[in-house]
Amino acid sequence: MAFLKELSLVKNNFLSGIDVLSRRAAQISAEIQQGERRSYNEVLDLSSGDLHRGGIKPITFVRQVLAACFYPALLEDDSLPLDVKQRAESLLRECDGGSVGSYTDSSGMAKVKRCVSQFITSRDGGVPSSPDNIFIKSGSQTALMIMLKLLIRSTDSCRTGVLIPVPTYASFSLALEEQGAAIIPYYLCEEQGWMLQVEELRRALQSARKTCNPAALYICNPGNPTGHIQSRKSIEEVIRFAAEEKLVILADEVYQSCVYGDNTEFYSYKKVLSEMGSTISSTVELASFHSVSKGFMGECGFRGGYVELVNIDPEVKEHASRLFSTRSCPPVVGQIALDLMTDPPKPGDPSFPTFSEEVQSIKNTICKNTGRIQEVISELPGVSCQPLKAGFFIFPSLYFPPKAIKWAEKREMEPDFLYCLHLLEETGLHARPGCEYRQREDSHHIRLFVGTRENVMEDALQRLKTFHVRFMKEFS
Amino acid sequence: MAFLKELSLVKNNFLSGIDVLSRRAAQISAEIQQGERRSYNEVLDLSSGDLHRGGIKPITFVRQVLAACFYPALLEDDSLPLDVKQRAESLLRECDGGSVGSYTDSSGMAKVKRCVSQFITSRDGGVPSSPDNIFIKSGSQTALMIMLKLLIRSTDSCRTGVLIPVPTYASFSLALEEQGAAIIPYYLCEEQGWMLQVEELRRALQSARKTCNPAALYICNPGNPTGHIQSRKSIEEVIRFAAEEKLVILADEVYQSCVYGDNTEFYSYKKVLSEMGSTISSTVELASFHSVSKGFMGECGFRGGYVELVNIDPEVKEHASRLFSTRSCPPVVGQIALDLMTDPPKPGDPSFPTFSEEVQSIKNTICKNTGRIQEVISELPGVSCQPLKAGFFIFPSLYFPPKAIKWAEKREMEPDFLYCLHLLEETGLHARPGCEYRQREDSHHIRLFVGTRENVMEDALQRLKTFHVRFMKEFS
Repeated sequence: MAFLKELSLVKNNFLSGIDVLSRRAAQISAEIQQGERRSYNEVLDLSSGDLHRGGIKPITFVRQVLAACFYPALLEDDSLPLDVKQRAESLLRECDGGSVGSYTDSSGMAKVKRCVSQFITSRDGGVPSSPDNIFIKSGSQTALMIMLKLLIRSTDSCRTGVLIPVPTYASFSLALEEQGAAIIPYYLCEEQGWMLQVEELRRALQSARKTCNPAALYICNPGNPTGHIQSRKSIEEVIRFAAEEKLVILADEVYQSCVYGDNTEFYSYKKVLSEMGSTISSTVELASFHSVSKGFMGECGFRGGYVELVNIDPEVKEHASRLFSTRSCPPVVGQIALDLMTDPPKPGDPSFPTFSEEVQSIKNTICKNTGRIQEVISELPGVSCQPLKAGFFIFPSLYFPPKAIKWAEKREMEPDFLYCLHLLEETGLHARPGCEYRQREDSHHIRLFVGTRENVMEDALQRLKTFHVRFMKEFS
Repeated sequence: MAFLKELSLVKNNFLSGIDVLSRRAAQISAEIQQGERRSYNEVLDLSSGDLHRGGIKPITFVRQVLAACFYPALLEDDSLPLDVKQRAESLLRECDGGSVGSYTDSSGMAKVKRCVSQFITSRDGGVPSSPDNIFIKSGSQTALMIMLKLLIRSTDSCRTGVLIPVPTYASFSLALEEQGAAIIPYYLCEEQGWMLQVEELRRALQSARKTCNPAALYICNPGNPTGHIQSRKSIEEVIRFAAEEKLVILADEVYQSCVYGDNTEFYSYKKVLSEMGSTISSTVELASFHSVSKGFMGECGFRGGYVELVNIDPEVKEHASRLFSTRSCPPVVGQIALDLMTDPPKPGDPSFPTFSEEVQSIKNTICKNTGRIQEVISELPGVSCQPLKAGFFIFPSLYFPPKAIKWAEKREMEPDFLYCLHLLEETGLHARPGCEYRQREDSHHIRLFVGTRENVMEDALQRLKTFHVRFMKEFS
């Protein structure tokens, strides 16, 4: 097969692996479009957390407001609900020249920052939030990169260390490496539902002190790719640890609205911190990230996210503010989406019934999907899975027969990477291998996105099942 | 005055200067909104190249296509022209899940890259361009930053040097400093219409060789803030120089469509390079940048720009491609705007008459504005100005009386910075001081944006005139 030629370049480099898998998926799609026959008629993409790619429809309210903002002649149109027009008008009033094509302040429009801070205050049951501490960028990752820039002093003889969970998504490790940080991995406990254990944080920090200067602790809660969510008690322990060790907490909370199950609740680091007594609550430095891509709105292509800074020294904040402002302004469309995400239609608003129905339907779909995934997976040989509590991904563990391991070793590849490549090639299902996420050695996983239309998920699961059974037979 | 408290922190730091001027402008606007009385009723902003902020209306075709892409129910609407609907439909077909809310390839959608490369081929009279060499990002500056990242090796004991014109816009110098590059200034010759002289490039390079490792030559053509445009001959000379000195050319060509006057034509570096004989045309490495912000479309808030790579070694391109792909995808709205900019309505299309009328009207406005600016300026004492040939800015030279220079020295500020601050404070006109652009020592300038509605420009010029006359009287 032609794609193996490219494969021969890959070896164990998970980065190239990302390229190879995605490129191959694109290539297969193109070949099918050009009429090439395969046993499947399209590639199914469970590789990234993209609701619309998975066939979920956008929220009508969001799209109507945007259409009116971009083409204000629609404000004269009777077909748009009154609250849509009012929101569009109020947003356009905040744009210079009344146009979404104008630059905004490089940290975001004042109106949107107010909206975000009101959302945070209300989310956290009244804990105050100030627009001055909100910085909007073209996605939470961009904001995170700027915060890393602020933290990491590459001129130091001793490198700045950042504690990161294992598993964690690849682009974050990459960003750290690019900025010259030392990565300090701490392992989440899979057996206990990917729990974050403070003794493990302590072990990781201790072992890193010899080689770098640990400055920050990165948390992903709810977790990607793990689908776990921290309890209030767990967050308190982490904050206490950060206080003792004088670490800045970088809390990636982009999946905060995607929480499933009856006894599961999202607590923000900010809220928990605020209730911990003043020696801690007024000193631990925290940056919390959120995004329009990862909620039920799922507007990944708009590019909008924010960071809120808590307890950051005013001089540092001034420096941060300058770093944020040397970059061009965030896309206005992403800012508007943030406004709509943090101030959605309320009961009584004309758009409310449709809006709440659409959100509920997306939630129902994801719940059904995760149920089906767990059902199907539980029947597959050599697969186990921690329950999905939150977020967009499920991360089953694969136990490969020794023959499969040897087969991969011979090709100098990670077994789960090779598994995903063949899964893609033979069934057209694009999932991601655990080796991309810096998993524990000798453990193997795949990451599956759970936010697709139900029929897409059913199709994907049948492909996975067929492939997996054949694979295990071949290598048993 | 309260704003002077803030001023006392400023001194000669042009960066803080940017903050102070912009912050003060925002503050004054807010005060006026809150009812405070001043001799003017609004701040007029000639500080940035933002057509819509200046009251220029967006291009209808662009906004209609985008509205339909955001809210496809509009495709059923009879009020939208057929070509608008067709374009929206063809763009939505290229989006995963048919939604502009999906992620795209991190270097941009294949359709848009094809469109951009066809535009380049046609612009350059048939010189081939391949979509594989196009990388789309959230603005030309973002693409430029990534190219700098590729070029600059901060681990070298000897820093990587980049030749940059003086004057040049501040954010670029900043980006270079942030990435750890050594800045090698070369001076444009104001007396000769801001001409770029190769002997000056040579002098700059020679003097820099002792302290750094010069790797790239940054060109801004048409020029910001200078409003000049290079002749074909001048470009050839520069390319020959880059070939001799083995420098990568970074050609910032974002103002390429904004060219005024009968005998003025834009030549792209790529076209000129392609016609220079194979030892040069096939070896000189070139990266050329363009954007949706800086043409007559003026959609700064959308965030869309691209770089085309020419003669870049395949392995380096692979590395570049990886650097581009570790960042999230560019905003879909910016990509769509690029598609529309590079493939606008054609004669015969339903949208063509309105489209061409709107573009012509913007051109006429800018031409009238620049005429009026030069008229007014020529009557002001102590001001001279090179003719504006292209771009969005005019950069008049100010000759301050010795008393004014001393007044500024006493305050440890640049005279043109202090001039701009008082211009803002007393008349509400927000212009930028030459000191932000690394101007030649002992020369002073202001930069004025030329792309506003005519009545806005007239108002601005009256404010400038009144202030300038009073200022010169006070210090003569």
